[in-house]
Amino acid sequence: MSSQRRAVCLLSGGLDSSTAMAVARQEGFDCCALSIDYGQRHRVELEAAARVALSLGASRHLVVRVDLRAIGGSALTGEDPVPKGREPARIGQGVPATYVPARNTVFLACALAWAETLETGDLFIGVNALDYSGYPDCRPEYVQAFERMANLATKAGVEGRLRVSIHAPLIQLSKAQIVRWAHELGVEFRLTWSCYDPAPGGRACGQCDSCLLRRKGFSEAGIEDPLEYAL
Amino acid sequence: MSSQRRAVCLLSGGLDSSTAMAVARQEGFDCCALSIDYGQRHRVELEAAARVALSLGASRHLVVRVDLRAIGGSALTGEDPVPKGREPARIGQGVPATYVPARNTVFLACALAWAETLETGDLFIGVNALDYSGYPDCRPEYVQAFERMANLATKAGVEGRLRVSIHAPLIQLSKAQIVRWAHELGVEFRLTWSCYDPAPGGRACGQCDSCLLRRKGFSEAGIEDPLEYAL
Repeated sequence: MSSQRRAVCLLSGGLDSSTAMAVARQEGFDCCALSIDYGQRHRVELEAAARVALSLGASRHLVVRVDLRAIGGSALTGEDPVPKGREPARIGQGVPATYVPARNTVFLACALAWAETLETGDLFIGVNALDYSGYPDCRPEYVQAFERMANLATKAGVEGRLRVSIHAPLIQLSKAQIVRWAHELGVEFRLTWSCYDPAPGGRACGQCDSCLLRRKGFSEAGIEDPLEYAL
Repeated sequence: MSSQRRAVCLLSGGLDSSTAMAVARQEGFDCCALSIDYGQRHRVELEAAARVALSLGASRHLVVRVDLRAIGGSALTGEDPVPKGREPARIGQGVPATYVPARNTVFLACALAWAETLETGDLFIGVNALDYSGYPDCRPEYVQAFERMANLATKAGVEGRLRVSIHAPLIQLSKAQIVRWAHELGVEFRLTWSCYDPAPGGRACGQCDSCLLRRKGFSEAGIEDPLEYAL
């Protein structure tokens, strides 16, 4: 049996979560990738997650279904339009329609459950507070509060066998810094997917907040984004 | 539009969650009942939840699917046997095989998501620290830490529109006290379901931890339990 430490890595298939998993690998973890099928309209990201998990050498890739569509409250799981064409500088102001209520709390809860089953306390998440698109559950104080709660939540924690640690290596970085780090770590950008609202033909829309932040990040990093955009 | 305050009430259909929802009703809340279909082997409890929601006048009842069976690690979602015939006095010692990794964290995360959609911060959960069967995520310090995290997690919280409050009215009560309170509040015991491992013919097994704690509670309260037990 390997003595390599395991980590559960939340992997959406986007640039940030792929980079966070590459960081986990770089730090020597055996990466167990976890993706959540939550009824997102950009379900194509789950295929990207599978490609990235394989490419980065994850030892497992689990997809768990959680029906957030039944709960509603977001343009990402409902019929409301995804906002398009916003100024990147304004994206961080206010919480946008693409916010999914308590999404990272649901995701981290599932990651915690799987981590306990796998007997590890190390969780990686690609949240980012700088270009964070206005999501409250991407801020350092949120991540710290989740970690504290998680250490009181589990059998393994109570029995003193595990200490939960939420790794958020990108939390203070700009998108350009993330692109550069991902490049150094060997993330294959062509395998990733960021768009919230795929255009006909399977291309990224190019105009949703997620596309705009990604394009700005690549542009500022001076690295070419291999994805094709509809607009 | 009614000015009645809404609450999201986690409702498994068991004695504790039914009583917690009856408390919410007593306190004047418009109760929105939330049940989680997580792949539990005692899926029959979801039917009990629907009956109880109706009986207690919930204005809504939502069932959300979360595939914890994919995550594993519990006798309640897998093939391992449910422990039977333990001494009630010993049930609280150690965490049993029926523990589901991070279950209450996953449940409360879903409740938080729905609460934000419904524009309320009041969540009710029937956790109980005394006869708590050894589950770490039923303790007061856990509930407090979840509440603190939840207040940093949501758009509504960050914008100052909601304050999240996790109500756990049963947390310090014995099962006998819960039975008496439920009786006063008009909970219809015959509609509830507690058994982890239903016997053929749809009866409660009578010997799992949940049946044993329930029977002990009714016995000590001097109230008759209308459920039929196989053993």
